[in-house]
Amino acid sequence: MQLLKDKIKTEGIVLSNNVLKVDSFLNHQMDPVLMMEMGKEFARRFQDKKITKVLTIESSGIAPGLMAALELNVPLVFARKQKSLTLTDNLFVEKVHSFTKQVTNDVTVSRKFLTAEDHVLVIDDFLANGEAAFGLARICEQAGATVAGVGIVIEKSFQPGRSKLVEAGYRVESLARIASLDNGQAQFVE
Amino acid sequence: MQLLKDKIKTEGIVLSNNVLKVDSFLNHQMDPVLMMEMGKEFARRFQDKKITKVLTIESSGIAPGLMAALELNVPLVFARKQKSLTLTDNLFVEKVHSFTKQVTNDVTVSRKFLTAEDHVLVIDDFLANGEAAFGLARICEQAGATVAGVGIVIEKSFQPGRSKLVEAGYRVESLARIASLDNGQAQFVE
Repeated sequence: MQLLKDKIKTEGIVLSNNVLKVDSFLNHQMDPVLMMEMGKEFARRFQDKKITKVLTIESSGIAPGLMAALELNVPLVFARKQKSLTLTDNLFVEKVHSFTKQVTNDVTVSRKFLTAEDHVLVIDDFLANGEAAFGLARICEQAGATVAGVGIVIEKSFQPGRSKLVEAGYRVESLARIASLDNGQAQFVE
Repeated sequence: MQLLKDKIKTEGIVLSNNVLKVDSFLNHQMDPVLMMEMGKEFARRFQDKKITKVLTIESSGIAPGLMAALELNVPLVFARKQKSLTLTDNLFVEKVHSFTKQVTNDVTVSRKFLTAEDHVLVIDDFLANGEAAFGLARICEQAGATVAGVGIVIEKSFQPGRSKLVEAGYRVESLARIASLDNGQAQFVE
């Protein structure tokens, strides 16, 4: 998606050869018009999939997830992250490890909001190792729901998340695919 | 806002005389069309305020904040909540106590994203004691920014948050004002 790539080029800050900071338009300050355009693009790419629900994870997935849900005219559900849970009644729970933050969280969704009839579009802001996307997909599977696809804002294509998801049979659509962050520059997959 | 009140009447669950559960359309599952209408309503109520930025707090403020920002055509900034911070360089930090969760969090915003020129609309999903709204307002004041107003989705008018904010000089606009949750029923302020 050209608008997003342009934004990454002009406002993204490459902190190291695997960290890209996009807090001016994606995960701290947000550009609502860009979010809306991304929502439209996700809806376009998954328009044949009979999506009934969008599922994402707090916090940075909420904005792109909401815009995709608006365009698809379905509800958004966002999973919550917690350190460790004592009460898990009526919840789907999966452990998700964050390599960036070096923590493992319990990720939860109320059993009320996913059913075996759902065709779910999983949305997240970043794809690196695929931990969050797999966690959300496993929650869908616990519910007996169909994972209709995985939509990602920024994919770090030099990390293994995408290939692991594709190998597991998921359709992955990323709005920007980054081939490398070497030499302080984001290079996109052609 | 009638659409929101209807939704509270039909889908809200009164758990006690001060707890209203709205996780089917506001803070776990979300209705994107309702969010869009709420964003339009916030924009209408603050249209004379020359807003330059919307400020909210993760996670449940992000969706209404984003829709308000979209309508006002300004960026959204969402504050992050953390248990306790070691690195606070380049951050505005305020302590915010949650009576519901009985925890005090450090709430942070990058210094890059609020300036003395900003006219800020503070948005949150619930107003009870006003802790979060005051925390966000203090962050604006640290930045030298003007708090143009406080927009709330659901105000529990029987708790002191609104009067404290109004006494402190803030304009408060709530889309639904709940007078009482007694007898398992949400009664609205006339």
